[in-house]
Amino acid sequence: MSFFETLGARIESTDSVVSVGLDPDPSRLPEFVADADLPRWAFNRRIIDATHEHAACYKPNAAFYEDADGWRALAETIAYAHGKDVPVLLDAKRADIGNTTRQYAAALDRADAITVNPYLGRDSLQPFLDREGKGVFVLCRTSNPGGSDLQDLELASGEPLYERVAALADVWNGNGNVGLVVGATAPEELAAVREIVPEIPFLVPGVGAQGGDAEAAVEHGLADHPDADVGAGLVNSSRGIIFAGEESSRPGDEATYFGAAGDAAKRLKKRLNRYR
Amino acid sequence: MSFFETLGARIESTDSVVSVGLDPDPSRLPEFVADADLPRWAFNRRIIDATHEHAACYKPNAAFYEDADGWRALAETIAYAHGKDVPVLLDAKRADIGNTTRQYAAALDRADAITVNPYLGRDSLQPFLDREGKGVFVLCRTSNPGGSDLQDLELASGEPLYERVAALADVWNGNGNVGLVVGATAPEELAAVREIVPEIPFLVPGVGAQGGDAEAAVEHGLADHPDADVGAGLVNSSRGIIFAGEESSRPGDEATYFGAAGDAAKRLKKRLNRYR
Repeated sequence: MSFFETLGARIESTDSVVSVGLDPDPSRLPEFVADADLPRWAFNRRIIDATHEHAACYKPNAAFYEDADGWRALAETIAYAHGKDVPVLLDAKRADIGNTTRQYAAALDRADAITVNPYLGRDSLQPFLDREGKGVFVLCRTSNPGGSDLQDLELASGEPLYERVAALADVWNGNGNVGLVVGATAPEELAAVREIVPEIPFLVPGVGAQGGDAEAAVEHGLADHPDADVGAGLVNSSRGIIFAGEESSRPGDEATYFGAAGDAAKRLKKRLNRYR
Repeated sequence: MSFFETLGARIESTDSVVSVGLDPDPSRLPEFVADADLPRWAFNRRIIDATHEHAACYKPNAAFYEDADGWRALAETIAYAHGKDVPVLLDAKRADIGNTTRQYAAALDRADAITVNPYLGRDSLQPFLDREGKGVFVLCRTSNPGGSDLQDLELASGEPLYERVAALADVWNGNGNVGLVVGATAPEELAAVREIVPEIPFLVPGVGAQGGDAEAAVEHGLADHPDADVGAGLVNSSRGIIFAGEESSRPGDEATYFGAAGDAAKRLKKRLNRYR
């Protein structure tokens, strides 16, 4: 079964395109996980308990796991999400060369999909693309202010760089396992990319803390997809869900804290479903 | 003291521009480190013992340390290199957004410099650039075959993308801590970038296993630098040094194995010095 088939089945069974970003920023973790053996894992486990009914996938960002304890916490988190039948997309934005990028691709032994950076070109992504059952989301147009510095540069052929990246990703998609990361902060760019690659699923970040437009994300990024069965894509929210209960983070507040995360995931699901 | 001052002093005291890549591919480690608590660390320690006299810096690639034991091995490796007064450049090729990229920049708490990917633009690199005493090497023109897929695309303004990246890196260099990664496999591209940014130090990979031209690397990449005191840059070799003794990897061969690494580092140093 391909990643997009698995994801499509999950989207259907949960009636949700919400990707829940698991970015357990140490400085924002509530007091009541501080004493756990692996605080990030203790936190993620409770977040997964609270949100999994509304989660099409979980998206841990690798940046929050880059130390010895972190990698243990990440491994447990992935296993636990799988225990709840939720696919895991590792947001790593990796790419390197030769034997090094083969080593990075080993992250797909555990995770079901990964984000990658296209700047080093096709061979830097090949070991990821070769994993037929796994998903590979190529950064195309990102939602941060500096996203325009390179991605919007006009090429001699007339189109901006990010549109060329979308076209290249289509060429690299021999195994049908390629997705694109296209930010929600620029709806007209979402529409432009969708026109170039009508069949490639999108991961749309930037809804929530970054202020992107959920309606545009679904309308241009997801709803037009001709083959809903394999999953038109995902809309991610991280801090807007996992830290939704931050006002209630004293010992004793656990139920309120994690309940707020569950409510936030459910609210986003419903908001997005209005446009699907 | 800035990173490039530290690096310049090291280049002067060792009379070497050799960066030794510490990429302990698990499948290529010799038998006699297999039983160690942390085989990668046991391997790196012996490599550092054998090569440090000829090493301007060590460049561990993060891909080989992405698991719980790996991060412990990396931390020990960095500390040990510092014990030998050798700066450490973490080859991570990172970049992300907002709080995530701030988290990645925490790698500079330990390492002295890092490689980053420019595709997400200035704000994705700002937390790295803000570390005034640390070096930030921006990927510009990489030495792999697919390096041309995006980097050589001609912009509407006439130059290829990688030249624009060099010019942007110059703009981003407010703290004087920016370097560029420019591969040795395309000497004329090295020369073109050097013309755009006469004062930015280069990290030149691709000499050795990737077949780049050492003479061109030094001539175009390093020798023209007007301010030799702050370090014109580095030429990296990884597998060509650390696995040079691979023919002698049975128990009992330790001295021969690591001696070969030391000899390879010394040979590359001398070869490069002929053109400096």
